[in-house]
Amino acid sequence: MFDNDSMDTIAAQIKQADSVYIFIHENMDGDALGSGAALCSYLRRMGKTAFVIRDGEVPQNLAFMDRDYCRTSGQVPVEHDMSIAVDCSEKTRFPHNIELFDKAGNSACVDHHLAPAPLANFNYVDPDAAASAELIFKLFKAMGPEPDKEEAEALFAGITTDTGNFQYSNTTKETHEIAAQLYDYGIDANHVSVEIYETVPFRKLNLSGMALDRAEIYADGKIAMTVVTQDMLAKAGAIMNDSEGIVSELRSIAGVEVAILVKESDDGRVFVSLRSKTEANVQKIAAKFGGGGHVKAAGCTVSGKSWQEVYEDFKNAAAEEIQ
Amino acid sequence: MFDNDSMDTIAAQIKQADSVYIFIHENMDGDALGSGAALCSYLRRMGKTAFVIRDGEVPQNLAFMDRDYCRTSGQVPVEHDMSIAVDCSEKTRFPHNIELFDKAGNSACVDHHLAPAPLANFNYVDPDAAASAELIFKLFKAMGPEPDKEEAEALFAGITTDTGNFQYSNTTKETHEIAAQLYDYGIDANHVSVEIYETVPFRKLNLSGMALDRAEIYADGKIAMTVVTQDMLAKAGAIMNDSEGIVSELRSIAGVEVAILVKESDDGRVFVSLRSKTEANVQKIAAKFGGGGHVKAAGCTVSGKSWQEVYEDFKNAAAEEIQ
Repeated sequence: MFDNDSMDTIAAQIKQADSVYIFIHENMDGDALGSGAALCSYLRRMGKTAFVIRDGEVPQNLAFMDRDYCRTSGQVPVEHDMSIAVDCSEKTRFPHNIELFDKAGNSACVDHHLAPAPLANFNYVDPDAAASAELIFKLFKAMGPEPDKEEAEALFAGITTDTGNFQYSNTTKETHEIAAQLYDYGIDANHVSVEIYETVPFRKLNLSGMALDRAEIYADGKIAMTVVTQDMLAKAGAIMNDSEGIVSELRSIAGVEVAILVKESDDGRVFVSLRSKTEANVQKIAAKFGGGGHVKAAGCTVSGKSWQEVYEDFKNAAAEEIQ
Repeated sequence: MFDNDSMDTIAAQIKQADSVYIFIHENMDGDALGSGAALCSYLRRMGKTAFVIRDGEVPQNLAFMDRDYCRTSGQVPVEHDMSIAVDCSEKTRFPHNIELFDKAGNSACVDHHLAPAPLANFNYVDPDAAASAELIFKLFKAMGPEPDKEEAEALFAGITTDTGNFQYSNTTKETHEIAAQLYDYGIDANHVSVEIYETVPFRKLNLSGMALDRAEIYADGKIAMTVVTQDMLAKAGAIMNDSEGIVSELRSIAGVEVAILVKESDDGRVFVSLRSKTEANVQKIAAKFGGGGHVKAAGCTVSGKSWQEVYEDFKNAAAEEIQ
C-alpha cells in the first residue's frame, strides 16, 4: 500500500480550513456515520463550518448520532475549503457526491479499508484498525481538544458495530484500549447499544420465533432449514423484510454447515436465502436454480413451484453439496 | 454490604492450600464457568489439586472451557483444604454442593453479585465489577504468576458473556482495560465468540423459537414476557439452561423497558429472569418475591405457585414498577 501522511500533518491541514465537508460511503453503517458525526461535531466546536455529506438515507437505528450534521450534495454551498473522506478510500463509495468532494481546495482521507491508491491530498489509511472511529480518535489526539461525550459515543458506536461488539477477529488490544479511554469522556455505551440494537419490532421477533420453532435439521445436523410463509407473516403482522436475520440464526446452530431459509412471497414466487458456516459452497446450490451470490451467502428466486417443492429441492441440493 | 478482605489476603490463603475446590452456581453461565475454569487451570499449574464443582450440566457452548476441570460432589474425595465460591455469594446458588463446600477447613468467595452476608472465611465481593472474571484476573495479579492463553480466554469468555459483549451498563473503563490486557496473553477472542455464540444447540434455538412465538407485550409495549414450560422443554428436547438468552431477546424489542422470562422447573419451583432496558429497576421487582440481582438484571425463585400465577404476579409487579 501507499505511504501514509502522519496524523499530525492531517490535523494541521484541517486546522487551516474554515469549512470542512466530511464524506461517508453509501449504505452508511455505524462506523461511517459514527466517525463522520464525531468529526463533524468536533470541528463545529472548533468554530468551523462542517457537514457530513451523506449518500443515501440515515438508517433509523443510527439516526440518534445525526444531530443535524448530515446533508446531501444539493443541501450545502458548493464552495468549501476541505473535503475529508471518512471510512472510505475510493470515491466510488460515495458515487453521488464525487463532484462536491472535488470542489474543495484541499482534501484528506481517514479510513481503515485496504486502499488501492491515495484518494486525497493527505491520507491516513490503516487496515489494521478495527474501525475508522479508532483513527478519528487518533486524529482528535493529534488536533488537541478532547472530544465531548456525544463525540465519544459516536466513536464507540463506530467501534462496536464494526467489531461485531468486540467479537470479530479485527478487534485488537488497542481497540479495547481506545474503548476504555472513551469512558473518560463519560460515554454511556449502553445507551449507544440500546439505540443501535434494542429497537427490534415485536412482530419481527415474533416471526423469528415462529420460523425457529418450525426449523428442521437434516443430513446429520449439517443442514438447517426453515420457512416463512404468508400465513406466518399474517399471524405476526410482519412483512417479508422482517425475516432478515433468521438464516444467520440457523447457521449459528452447532454442527450446521448450510443454513437455508425458504420464503413464500405473495405473488407466487419463492425466495431462498442460503448461508454456509465454514466450507460448503452455497453459491453452487443457488446456481442450480438460477440464483447467485457468494460462496458463504447466496440467494435465489424460484417461480412456478410451491414453497414445499422448493424446500425439498434445496434440501436435496444441499445434501448433495455437503457430501 | 460487609467489608471485603483484600485480594492479597485471599491470594495468601489460597497459596497455603494443596487441594482447592471451586464452587460455581447452578445453571452455570459463561462467567461462572469461565472464572471457575481459569482459576482451576491456574491452580493446577501451581501444582495444586483443583476441581470446579458443578451443580448441573455444562452447557454445550461453554464446554470448550472445561478441560477436565468439572466434577460433581460425588466424583471427588470429600476431604480438601479449601473451598472457593466463584460468581456466587450465597450457598443456595449451588444447592447440591453445600455439604462438600463446608467440608473444607478454609473457604473464600470471589464474586460480583450483591451479597447479604459473607459466605466464606475470606470474601472479595465487588458488585461494581462487570464480571467475576474481572476479579479472578485481579486475584491472578495478587497471586503472581501470569495466566496462560486458555485461562485468559476463559476470563474473556466470562467478561464478554456477563457484559453482553461489552454492551450492558455494567461495562466500565476497567472492563475494557482488563480485556485489553488479556490480549497480552494471546487470546483469540473470535474463537471464544464462535464457540459460545455459533454453536447453539438446535434444541436451544428451537426452544427460543417457541418462547418468542408465544411472547406477549403489555403496558403499551413496555413489558415483554414469555414462558418456558416443562412441556416446551420436552417438545424441544431441551434443558432449562437452553432458555438462556431468551430474556435478552425480549428486551431487544423496540419500546420494551422490562423483559421477563418465567421458567417452570421440574420440581414445582418457578424461576424468573428479569432484564431492564434503561431506567426500570428489576431488582426491586425481584425483591418483592424474595429474589435479587442487579438493577438491570435480576432473578427470583418462587415456590408453591403455578407458573401461570407467577407470570401474573410479575406482570403486575412490573406494571407497577414502570409507572
